Amino acid sequence: MENFEFVSPTHFVFGRAAEEQIGQKLAAAGATKALVHFGGKSAKASGLLDRVCAALDAAGIAYVELGGVRPNPEITLVRHGVDLCKRENVDWIVAVGGGSVIDSAKAIANGACIEEDVWTLFESKATGHPTLPIAVVLTIPAAGSEASKNVVISNDALGRKTGYANNDHRPKFAFMNPELTFTLPPFQTAAGITDMYAHLLERFFDDVEAVPVTDNLNLSLMKTVRAEAPRVLADPENYDARANIMWAGMLCHQGLAGVGRHEDWATHALEHELSALNPTITHGAGLAVLFPAWMEYVCGENPARFAYYGAQVFGLAPTGDVMADAFSAIDETRSFFASLGMPTALAELGICEEDIERMIPTLQANKGAIFGSFKKLSMDDARAIYRRAL
Amino acid sequence: MENFEFVSPTHFVFGRAAEEQIGQKLAAAGATKALVHFGGKSAKASGLLDRVCAALDAAGIAYVELGGVRPNPEITLVRHGVDLCKRENVDWIVAVGGGSVIDSAKAIANGACIEEDVWTLFESKATGHPTLPIAVVLTIPAAGSEASKNVVISNDALGRKTGYANNDHRPKFAFMNPELTFTLPPFQTAAGITDMYAHLLERFFDDVEAVPVTDNLNLSLMKTVRAEAPRVLADPENYDARANIMWAGMLCHQGLAGVGRHEDWATHALEHELSALNPTITHGAGLAVLFPAWMEYVCGENPARFAYYGAQVFGLAPTGDVMADAFSAIDETRSFFASLGMPTALAELGICEEDIERMIPTLQANKGAIFGSFKKLSMDDARAIYRRAL
Repeated sequence: MENFEFVSPTHFVFGRAAEEQIGQKLAAAGATKALVHFGGKSAKASGLLDRVCAALDAAGIAYVELGGVRPNPEITLVRHGVDLCKRENVDWIVAVGGGSVIDSAKAIANGACIEEDVWTLFESKATGHPTLPIAVVLTIPAAGSEASKNVVISNDALGRKTGYANNDHRPKFAFMNPELTFTLPPFQTAAGITDMYAHLLERFFDDVEAVPVTDNLNLSLMKTVRAEAPRVLADPENYDARANIMWAGMLCHQGLAGVGRHEDWATHALEHELSALNPTITHGAGLAVLFPAWMEYVCGENPARFAYYGAQVFGLAPTGDVMADAFSAIDETRSFFASLGMPTALAELGICEEDIERMIPTLQANKGAIFGSFKKLSMDDARAIYRRAL
Repeated sequence: MENFEFVSPTHFVFGRAAEEQIGQKLAAAGATKALVHFGGKSAKASGLLDRVCAALDAAGIAYVELGGVRPNPEITLVRHGVDLCKRENVDWIVAVGGGSVIDSAKAIANGACIEEDVWTLFESKATGHPTLPIAVVLTIPAAGSEASKNVVISNDALGRKTGYANNDHRPKFAFMNPELTFTLPPFQTAAGITDMYAHLLERFFDDVEAVPVTDNLNLSLMKTVRAEAPRVLADPENYDARANIMWAGMLCHQGLAGVGRHEDWATHALEHELSALNPTITHGAGLAVLFPAWMEYVCGENPARFAYYGAQVFGLAPTGDVMADAFSAIDETRSFFASLGMPTALAELGICEEDIERMIPTLQANKGAIFGSFKKLSMDDARAIYRRAL
């Protein structure tokens, strides 16, 4: 087991009507003026935004609103949020939404406390500066950003999508009401499930030997996500299934599922280039295509690890041929994503062979010439994985 | 899944030489004067205490020392620690040891910030007052107190042993170096493993239906503890086995293994009376005797839950007779504890039938007339479980 540090200070309020506690919790934490940050129309149309604002009002917390966060959140709106926070003396950020809104809120929370332009942090990956505290009202279980140390932002002008990690911007509160996810469209539910499962795969496959305590926890989450996924898709208002998925989504990316390991994250890096190229591509859909391709390309490095994964998660009986067992596990993974309605080829996302050379330069700018852990990948390896996924 | 709140803000520094970082981390957190709290001679003899104090010195943090914490820590030393903190203007507590030292530190951390005698908190279970921040250098993986919200203290004058929960006294830092556990005697290693496994059982068996995300995580920890236990006992200097047990011990009691459930805790309550009666009884040894007796007494409430546990943790194949399957799971649990060298009857702990009526009044004082969740237990039920365990 590798040495590690781990801290996850988020205070979770989980269950029915959880969001109604936001006023009292933030007032007790000293909030006086919030930036309420959200995405499109659904937060308004559903009445959720009104309920959150009413809870802030009732607790005597002033607020300004900033909506319009898009999927693959962009730096322009972040800059606008930073200006708003500075101008209005905002002392807390309230993110109402999913991973995109939370990531946008994290970027604003950092930018509001530095003099430089906020994008400089995405170049320098600097930490240690103050950040505004964040409270999340989660509406989409997927990215795990409600508790994670990660933030990913797109910069359309530069054609870049990149992120960094900072324990200081882990949200202080996460209000998680599974009922808020009853109305998520099936595609968004499925893409979210794919993203959370991918967060486990990125942590499970690396160049460190078995870490049973971490691996068993990780595998338990894979089994949970795989078992609950068909339940929420078949019965979107099943409270318990939605609750299991919502809590699992947080655990998949909070960090415990990878402590003591190096983790990999090559597939996420490959996917970020898809949505940098075309911001309408859903992150989970890109991962569903790229993960099996990455697995097939790298599994020769340690096929026993893949065979073990197949036995534990899919109940595959060993055949005596470990490479065949590894490929069976990969086939099951691809079938699982397909069963959710996810795409299986880049063509379905509108990505063609000519796009590969458009992605490689920014991939290298973001990750360097060599990236990944399970297998160290060069840009030629990246090209080969993209081609395999076409 | 039941509604819940969960917060675990402890910053973990895990791995070889972790304790050497204590000076810089505490200085960065603003510590100026620490109470260094520890148990018997081993922390001094091993040189650990000197290393911790040297790290504080190097970081310019002054300190006073208070040793002598016994197993089943007692209120008299806690009061002495409270006085010392107030007199010396201590602003951080550094606990070097296992659960007894950490619990003693938690009690001091509370008592140092209130006017009343610290024992009043163990009567009122009050929270919400300030507490001194705590940093732990863990030497015994067992109680999980390095991250838990719980504290348990004995009061010999009253013949009481009781505790309460307070998220505010969860330690701020836990320095966890598995090498520090290489020299633990086999009995102490085994009693610690029993305690951590019992923390999972208390959370798994209650009156709430399945919560797959929590249950699967809990079961993954049971499997980890069960698999790593024989490895550390056979090879005490196996770093990876010690590391897995050390991290698992934290996870078993941090709280994630029970969120969304009511949890039970009847067996811990029954055990606390054993060590209130005789403070030389090791908590884990008492649990090893009482848990199978409790299981046999209550399993008729929901034998399917026990059968499921047996299938998942011990790989028991269902026989078609769910009550038989439940008893097989209980037999496996007893055998697991026995395989660690734990006692199987109260007689081995020096407890006889006449002692039962000496424990019932304090049990009722601590827990009320009815306690437990999987099955609501009366004092007559408690008598029956003690008798079954004789």
